Amino acid sequence: MSLHGDYDPQNIFAQIIRGEAPCYKLYEDDDVLAFLDLFPQSHGHTLVIPKRAAARTILDIDADSLCKLMRVTQRLTQALVDELQPEGVQVAQFNGAPAGQTVFHIHMHIVPRFAGQGLAVHASSKADPLELEKLQARLLQRLGG
Amino acid sequence: MSLHGDYDPQNIFAQIIRGEAPCYKLYEDDDVLAFLDLFPQSHGHTLVIPKRAAARTILDIDADSLCKLMRVTQRLTQALVDELQPEGVQVAQFNGAPAGQTVFHIHMHIVPRFAGQGLAVHASSKADPLELEKLQARLLQRLGG
Repeated sequence: MSLHGDYDPQNIFAQIIRGEAPCYKLYEDDDVLAFLDLFPQSHGHTLVIPKRAAARTILDIDADSLCKLMRVTQRLTQALVDELQPEGVQVAQFNGAPAGQTVFHIHMHIVPRFAGQGLAVHASSKADPLELEKLQARLLQRLGG
Repeated sequence: MSLHGDYDPQNIFAQIIRGEAPCYKLYEDDDVLAFLDLFPQSHGHTLVIPKRAAARTILDIDADSLCKLMRVTQRLTQALVDELQPEGVQVAQFNGAPAGQTVFHIHMHIVPRFAGQGLAVHASSKADPLELEKLQARLLQRLGG
């Protein structure tokens, strides 16, 4: 899979946007959706995606949609820091398979980092659904507060 | 160094913004500055920083400045892809030392990825100044075109 290519409307994030696949939703507005990663690299690993842009990468998205994506990314990062108290946070966006992209709908990763803890390899193990539910509830309360 | 802390106006990026330290500049406007990383993780590794915001992390910057930062990041990513033809690009932003942040002025990394090539460890070896100059010249021509 290269950096360029056609957008596949059957990718899993497109299905989530259309409500055809479930997610542990943390935030949604007309333009942006945020949810917990099912294969988290760390506790609280969150994904933020544009809803309207059929964009594979940062090269395919209009600047306004990118801005909206970043505003929500910033807000979610704050909520994760407030709730989970990590010592660091990585915000990252991968374009193309050689850069680590696995779903070809543009998405921002928010990965809390805890001192002394390495990162899990992405997609290596699925999170416990009960843990994700509990985490979702905590973060929704934080975001609503 | 934790996620929170005071902004140090003597950090190297603040010095670059004030013109007190040199850089291989690729782009500058009133709000944003982009330049080549001196310790590149890959060929073309570029940094994009806000000029006005005295912000350590994504939690300290106002949303408008963050948007401006992303617009330039997007533009530079396109120029790097056009000029260097990588198979992928990582866009990343590290908050706090446990997340990999080494300079405490918010910055976006743009790291081109080439198939079959791993990443150098950041800050492990300084790039050849002549190579950086040549790369700067190519990218400036691309950006001006």
